[in-house]
Formats: sequence, C-alpha cells, structure tokens
Amino acid sequence: MTPRGAGTGMTGGALAVQGGLVMVMTRLKRILSIDTENLVAEVEPGVVTGHFQEVVEGEGLFYPPDPSSAAYCTLGGNVAECAGGPCAIKYGVTRDYVLGLEVVLPTGEIISTGVHTAKGVVGYDLTRLMVGSEGTLGVITKIVLRLLPLPEEVRTLSVVFSSIHDAARTVSEVARSGILPRTVEYMDQAAIRCVEDHLKIGLPVDAGAMLLIDVDGSRSGVEASLQYLVAICEKGGADQIKVAGSKEEAKELWRAREAMSPALFRLGPDKINQDIVVPRNRIPDMVEWVDELRARTGLTIVTFGHAGDGNIHVNIMFDRNDKETLEKAESAVKELFGQTIALGGTISGEHGVGVTKAPYMEMEIGAEEIAVMKRIKAMFDPKGILNPGKIF
Amino acid sequence: MTPRGAGTGMTGGALAVQGGLVMVMTRLKRILSIDTENLVAEVEPGVVTGHFQEVVEGEGLFYPPDPSSAAYCTLGGNVAECAGGPCAIKYGVTRDYVLGLEVVLPTGEIISTGVHTAKGVVGYDLTRLMVGSEGTLGVITKIVLRLLPLPEEVRTLSVVFSSIHDAARTVSEVARSGILPRTVEYMDQAAIRCVEDHLKIGLPVDAGAMLLIDVDGSRSGVEASLQYLVAICEKGGADQIKVAGSKEEAKELWRAREAMSPALFRLGPDKINQDIVVPRNRIPDMVEWVDELRARTGLTIVTFGHAGDGNIHVNIMFDRNDKETLEKAESAVKELFGQTIALGGTISGEHGVGVTKAPYMEMEIGAEEIAVMKRIKAMFDPKGILNPGKIF
Repeated sequence: MTPRGAGTGMTGGALAVQGGLVMVMTRLKRILSIDTENLVAEVEPGVVTGHFQEVVEGEGLFYPPDPSSAAYCTLGGNVAECAGGPCAIKYGVTRDYVLGLEVVLPTGEIISTGVHTAKGVVGYDLTRLMVGSEGTLGVITKIVLRLLPLPEEVRTLSVVFSSIHDAARTVSEVARSGILPRTVEYMDQAAIRCVEDHLKIGLPVDAGAMLLIDVDGSRSGVEASLQYLVAICEKGGADQIKVAGSKEEAKELWRAREAMSPALFRLGPDKINQDIVVPRNRIPDMVEWVDELRARTGLTIVTFGHAGDGNIHVNIMFDRNDKETLEKAESAVKELFGQTIALGGTISGEHGVGVTKAPYMEMEIGAEEIAVMKRIKAMFDPKGILNPGKIF
Repeated sequence: MTPRGAGTGMTGGALAVQGGLVMVMTRLKRILSIDTENLVAEVEPGVVTGHFQEVVEGEGLFYPPDPSSAAYCTLGGNVAECAGGPCAIKYGVTRDYVLGLEVVLPTGEIISTGVHTAKGVVGYDLTRLMVGSEGTLGVITKIVLRLLPLPEEVRTLSVVFSSIHDAARTVSEVARSGILPRTVEYMDQAAIRCVEDHLKIGLPVDAGAMLLIDVDGSRSGVEASLQYLVAICEKGGADQIKVAGSKEEAKELWRAREAMSPALFRLGPDKINQDIVVPRNRIPDMVEWVDELRARTGLTIVTFGHAGDGNIHVNIMFDRNDKETLEKAESAVKELFGQTIALGGTISGEHGVGVTKAPYMEMEIGAEEIAVMKRIKAMFDPKGILNPGKIF
C-alpha cells in the first residue's frame, strides 16, 4: 500500500516499486478550518500547497514552506517528505509548521498526535516522527498547521559576482547579520548560461555566480534591511546589484531562477537532481569540487539552489539511452555524496530518501542508527505493508 | 537509572522515584565548538544554559530558549524536557534549535542523530523523538545546536489594562500584526498585587492585567516596531504604556515579572505550578474560569506567563500541612486540566509530564496514542531501566 499525493516528489517516494495498491489522497482536499485569531489551520492531506497559501493569504496570513512544485504538490506529500523551499533560510521547513496530525497506522489504529497550540510537550513527539517518514509509518489523513501573519512587504534584489568565493562569503556575511532575508538563492555560471540560452534576457554569462535575495517584513523595516544588504553585497565585491522597484521588476528578476528547471533540459533529455546540503561556508569548496568533477568526467553539471542554508541542487544532465554516460553519472552521484559527507553535510536536504537515495543511506547514517529506524518501522508496520521498498 | 541535569525541572523528571542510580550529567560541561560562520555549536549536556548564552553572545550570536532557570539549568535537561521560555513566541522552543544529538541507548548502543546543517531529511527524525522524551529513551551525551545572529537591539514596554479582556484582545492583535515581539509576558491582578506587596515599586494594583513586551531586531527596525506596538496597545484600550528608554529602565520594568516566583511564597509556603497552554484567544476564558475557581474553592491562585503563545502558569499557593487545602488544591488541578483540554489546550507547555502530570496524561492523550508511545519506550528500553515511573 503506497500513499501518494500529487506524485511530485524527487526521490520516488510515491511509486509502488513493489507493486500493490497506490492510495491516492488527492480527493481528501478540504481546508477544514482557518483560525485567524490563533493562526492555526486544519487541512486534509490532498490540499494543494499553492492553493492553501493563496487562501490563507486572503486572510492576511502566511504559510511559508514553498517547494518549487507548490502549484501542484499536496500538503500531505509535503509533510511526508518534510518539504522545504527557498524561504527555509528564514522560515524553516514543513516540520516547523506541523503542530499535529491524524494518522492511520498500518495496524489499523487512527491516532491523533500533537496539539492545536503554540507549545506542547505531553508524551513522545509522534508528530515529528511522522513528518519526513515518507509514508512508511502511517497514512496522514489530517494536518494541523501553524500560520504566520503575512509580511507587509517583500522586496527583491539580484546580485552578480565575478567570483563564486565572493558570493559565498557574502552569503555567510548576510546570514551572520541581524537581518535574515526571506530567500538567498544562488546560480552558478553554468546555471546562468543555461538560463540565458533559454530566455535571452541579458544575464551576465561571464559572472561566477548570481544571488537572488528576497527580504520581507514591515514596510519601513524592509527598506532599512534592503539598504543594509546592499551595503554587505557591495563590501563583498558584487559587480552588479539590481533592486526591484516594483512587483513586476521583482518578477523579472525571479524569472531567471524560475526558468532554471525547464532550461536545464536544453542540456540533455534526462536529469539527475541531487539535493545535498553542506555547511554554508563550504559552498565554495563544494562548487570547486563540482568544477573538478565536471572537468574530469566530461559530464554536464549545473548547480543552483538555496545558498542561505547550504542546500545545493546538483543537476547532472544526460541521455538515459547513452549507457556509458548513465554509468558515469551514477558513479558521479556516489562521489558527490561522499564529498558532501566529507564536508560535514547531508545527502538530502528536502527531497527525502525514497528509492533513489536508499542505496546511499548507509554512507551517511550508521548501522546502529539504521537498526533503530528499522525497529521503529517494524513496530509501526509489523507486516511491512506500507510503502515497502522505501528509505532502507 | 535516572539521568539528571541540574534538577530544576518542574515535574520531577530527574527524581529517582523507583530508586536505582541517578546519573548526574553536570560534569559533562564542555562547549565543544562554536562555528561562528555556520551558526552551529556542539556542546555536552551539562553546560549551563545561561553560561552558554553568555558565551555565544560574546561571539555576536544568540541562543534563544530562555527557561526561567537559565542561570542554573543545563542544556541536556532543556533538551530532555523541550524547555521553552518567554522568547518562544518569536523564537520557538528548544526543539527548534536541536540539529542533532549523541545518545546512549538503554540497550548500550551510542547513536548519532540529525545533522550539522540547516536542513536534513535522511531517515526518521530520531533527534526530535529524543527531544522532550524526559530521559526515558536514552542518555544525551552531546548536542548540536543551531544559533542565530544576536539581535542588534532589544527594547521593552510595559502596558497596563483595566480589563483582562482588553489585554487578551491586544495580545491577539499583536500576534496578528506583522511584528512578532520577542516576548509578550502577562500578569493577572492577583499576580500584580502579590509582587507589589513584595517589592513596593508602585505597580498598578487595581489593574486587570499587565503585559511586558520585548521587541528586538535591527536598531531602525526596533524603533519602528515599538511605535507600531504602542499604537496597537493604545487602540486596544491600554491605561498606561511605559517604554523603557535605557537598559536600566528595561531592567526595572522586568523586575516585577522576575520577582513573581519568589513573591508567590508570601501567599503560602507551598506551590503547585501548572504549565497549561490554551489557544491564545481563549486566555480570557481561562482567566475568568480561574476567577470562578478561586471564588468557589477559596484557594489562593495566581496566574502569569507567556501570553504570546497562550502558555499560562497557574500557581496554587497553600500549606502542605493543611490536609484539607491540599486535597482541594489537588482536585482543583484536575479541574484545571479538564478546562484546559475543553478549551482546546494542552496540560504541559514546557514542563514535561514527569511524575507530577503522569496521572493526568490520559485526560489529553488517547489510549491508542499512549499505546504507541509505550511501544516506543519498550522498543528503546526493553528492560525498563531508564528513568522508570516517568510520563506513563
């Protein structure tokens, strides 16, 4: 039995790899309540994330987790995978917004976990044990979510650096400043070139890196933060800083980042997208290492992602029919994970393990920790009927 | 075997109620590393919370969880109980700062959980299963903590209301505004009078409630937030608003709140301190209900706490030698929990269950959820040797 939301996951969590039934949850799509005084909502798992965000924004509220697939993916899938997105640097990930759950266990019990309040510490944290468990411990049938007030204003700036090192140092400076931007997105040179080929909007194809920074808050606060960030970027050696003066200009600046995924397919019909995280100050080391890997293997590799929290999407573009390149790509992934762990990172920031990362699980997690996780799985699902073949 | 930090917990979690060994962790007190670039620290569990806060502040960094016992309590105990504090409204609780743990299991394995990075979703969330498990699942021997940049400035205002309802409505307004204060503390009339008797500093003894609000952020941002909050409080019907102009004045405003716990003992030699949480907009209902309880039982009851997140400390002052009052107090606690749950709340916001709340656990948590928790306990600790007699 494999629970499935919209099937937008990146590691195959919703695929019935061992056959059996797929339980599509998309018709459980009611927003059950939005408590505008206590900033809490109750939803069914099939509610589309982007739809939910629009509805709460209509009430002057804000649900921050913003996976790229927000227009299609469901909140249930987001909870199952602990989805993130660009806003995570300031607002955290799905885990940070789930107050409680209703879950049907593989043994038949329907349990309610967590609270409807801001705090709560009665008993073990079953809520967060379910978040990110990828549909292997229970089927989520209801979600209690924490909301925030909608920030009064969002402003955008794009910053171009000739050197990736200057860009990375600047990201660290920004993170250390008292001002936490809403997003700090990054594109490397290969990514900039790829999007420019696709869109022809005059991106700086010789730049080493580009940052896209959103700041939000109260109107007066945002203006002050913006000036402060511009000063940090200038001091950090930025070649070009564009501050969007209007929503349209902000949209234009974001166009490059949003075109990233479709543009990639200019470079090859198939993509391996790896979602690694390294400590923020190791981003330049990782990017340099990817440069070396690219040179050594001849593979087409593009990196971009959430620089603010060290979460880099490393994309290898290739043709699946070309067996030799496929093998090379697969071995490059293994090397990439090894390097990620050597730099103190993790092999999955927000995409889960599913089937595609399961073979690499032991590179990061020790045998004793895996044994504990397997015991938890066996305890919740003694017959192994729920989403078999995932994670382990 | 009962692991123990400084023993400052409020529900008896560190007491060896069934005998056996107490494992005092206070000598594991090294701060192992503070990574000022990636805003991550590694500590041993015996580090005193307040000491850690001072050390990271020396590096321009900030560790927000601030239980009242910060000067004595240890980070290990904070993790075991998922400690909170006044800052939780803006910054969350201990759970939100624990990235990873080293834990010795009752079965002898030493496991490492979590990550050293901002994000990470590989396998089940063993980290947060351990947070708040009150020393019943494993002994914490190392903690990886997330840090924040130290806010540039903190400003304080105290606000007096003649009616508790106006105060509560104002708290909701503040929480709904884009400006999240660092703290929104509240004292009811009984609390104000008690502290005034103790300190004689001219507190408004006829006021219905007093709020103590801290705002933090960048210098310019704080000034703007302060003005905005003053406007909300004026509109909300505040009788008196004092904005501290200096650190000394802020300290003076906080004096009343900080004198609260010692002042209480003027009202009786013994205290039952219950740490309930209700949805923020139910605070007036709860306070009214407590008024009725006080009138009906003749018990001395004082409420104060973290209004921003609906977390109210309800204190019953009495003399343990007076058997009749003791029985009345114990039956009042049970009523209080019933009312809390009826209002959609939880019986423990930040103090855990330990021994004192264990008899009431089933009022909030269903039989099937408790069965799952007990299975988890049995899985981690098949011989039941770790902190027996707690939670369940």
